[in-house]
Amino acid sequence: MSEQLTFAPSSAALLEPYLPSLHNGSSPSPSRPFVTLTFATSLDSSLSLAPGVRTRLSGPDSKAMTHYLRSRHSAILVGISTLLADDPGLNCRISSATSQPRPIIIDPHLRWKPSGSDKVLQLCRKGQGLAPYVLTGVSISDIPQESSAVLYDHGGKFIHADSSAPGPNGRSRFDWNDILNALERESLSSVMVEGGAQIINSLLEPKYHDLVDSVIVTIAPTWLGQGGVVVSPGRVHDENGVPLPAARLSNVQWHPFGEDVVLCGTLRS
Amino acid sequence: MSEQLTFAPSSAALLEPYLPSLHNGSSPSPSRPFVTLTFATSLDSSLSLAPGVRTRLSGPDSKAMTHYLRSRHSAILVGISTLLADDPGLNCRISSATSQPRPIIIDPHLRWKPSGSDKVLQLCRKGQGLAPYVLTGVSISDIPQESSAVLYDHGGKFIHADSSAPGPNGRSRFDWNDILNALERESLSSVMVEGGAQIINSLLEPKYHDLVDSVIVTIAPTWLGQGGVVVSPGRVHDENGVPLPAARLSNVQWHPFGEDVVLCGTLRS
Repeated sequence: MSEQLTFAPSSAALLEPYLPSLHNGSSPSPSRPFVTLTFATSLDSSLSLAPGVRTRLSGPDSKAMTHYLRSRHSAILVGISTLLADDPGLNCRISSATSQPRPIIIDPHLRWKPSGSDKVLQLCRKGQGLAPYVLTGVSISDIPQESSAVLYDHGGKFIHADSSAPGPNGRSRFDWNDILNALERESLSSVMVEGGAQIINSLLEPKYHDLVDSVIVTIAPTWLGQGGVVVSPGRVHDENGVPLPAARLSNVQWHPFGEDVVLCGTLRS
Repeated sequence: MSEQLTFAPSSAALLEPYLPSLHNGSSPSPSRPFVTLTFATSLDSSLSLAPGVRTRLSGPDSKAMTHYLRSRHSAILVGISTLLADDPGLNCRISSATSQPRPIIIDPHLRWKPSGSDKVLQLCRKGQGLAPYVLTGVSISDIPQESSAVLYDHGGKFIHADSSAPGPNGRSRFDWNDILNALERESLSSVMVEGGAQIINSLLEPKYHDLVDSVIVTIAPTWLGQGGVVVSPGRVHDENGVPLPAARLSNVQWHPFGEDVVLCGTLRS
């Protein structure tokens, strides 16, 4: 039996303005999914102490909030580094949930070899979650047969998308428009983008702000210290090379939540 | 005429538990000053876009709060890099203030050459602020005569203290115990530590947590992006080399303040 979580209706009401509609899950733009960017950091903007080190940052209320938010989206999205480092369950354990979100794994260079012992697939076999859809830049014909078979047997699949957009470290990556187009084709009307740092930092780049419908950040009152896995988008300059703030939230609300604070806002001006 | 600021009594009341006593300014330890650490950062924990670039982070309420906090301390402390980069006024412009705080400049290697055109000394001549006390590791007899004269004429002075504690970058620095001892000898019963990043990061090291009576951090809902001047203390490990969070606040309160949030807490467990 997995632990079931509950989230207070009074807390849920505070988040409602930042969530996809309960009735039709519609996005402001009907041609793409509603996108919620959500994560938890320390005061020094770290997701964890080091890559692959799961770090308990926020309190129990925050965990229930994450699962409540998952219950309100058709899909939840993480990068391949998070999947490989954390072996996450990627399901929804809120007791009132009537369906499970579809896990989306962003894996442009196909680093994942799915195995039945992966937690996300274990939960799927128990009927406690869905199998992932894996977005990759690798051609479907070049994917190892075992990988496809394991994923397919659980109800998941690989989806090919162009991954030739230039990334900050010289490696190619997906363009977020292509990611959202792929989700739209799968009839997924909303997606909660959860991490890790590379995924979050890329979505915070100015060219993608119009794709993000809401941002929900939990901040814990701790400093992890230098060397953590940091959320901070790439540097932005004006036409004269003068540095500018990379992103600013509008429609801001701060909600204290136990020892943490939850920041809600929108990226579009 | 300099702009006068006002700070709402209802807001001031929220901060009161984190401030030195109005009546005697006493510290929990009578042998040293009450220490308040306060600063404003972006969501990615930056004080500014780059060294020497003054970055408007927080709203007008936050500026009034800073000056209100200054009115509640005997001294305000900044590092030499902040003084040289920003040419700050280091005075208190809250309309209800009955006295000015003493600026304390931390300048172990004596980089400052005071000049009458420095803003802090201009304000001093106008009767709108006090001249700094400069803590330096240089022997008083080795300080250039002009520097001493300019500072002395404004009512300030150089104070020698041992600055041979090892710093993170191989340079020597002050131990915070010696800084606070020097303030105590000057009968300064409370100090507001304002910045910059090196000063803040050193005070957030575990060995100094017992010296800090309260922490007040303003967070603005913006990401400055990579390359900013970051608040994040040095990495802390346990005896097995496993990384640990460097600092965590207790007695936490979060107060939304316009678009920003003000976090109050204590470092002692």
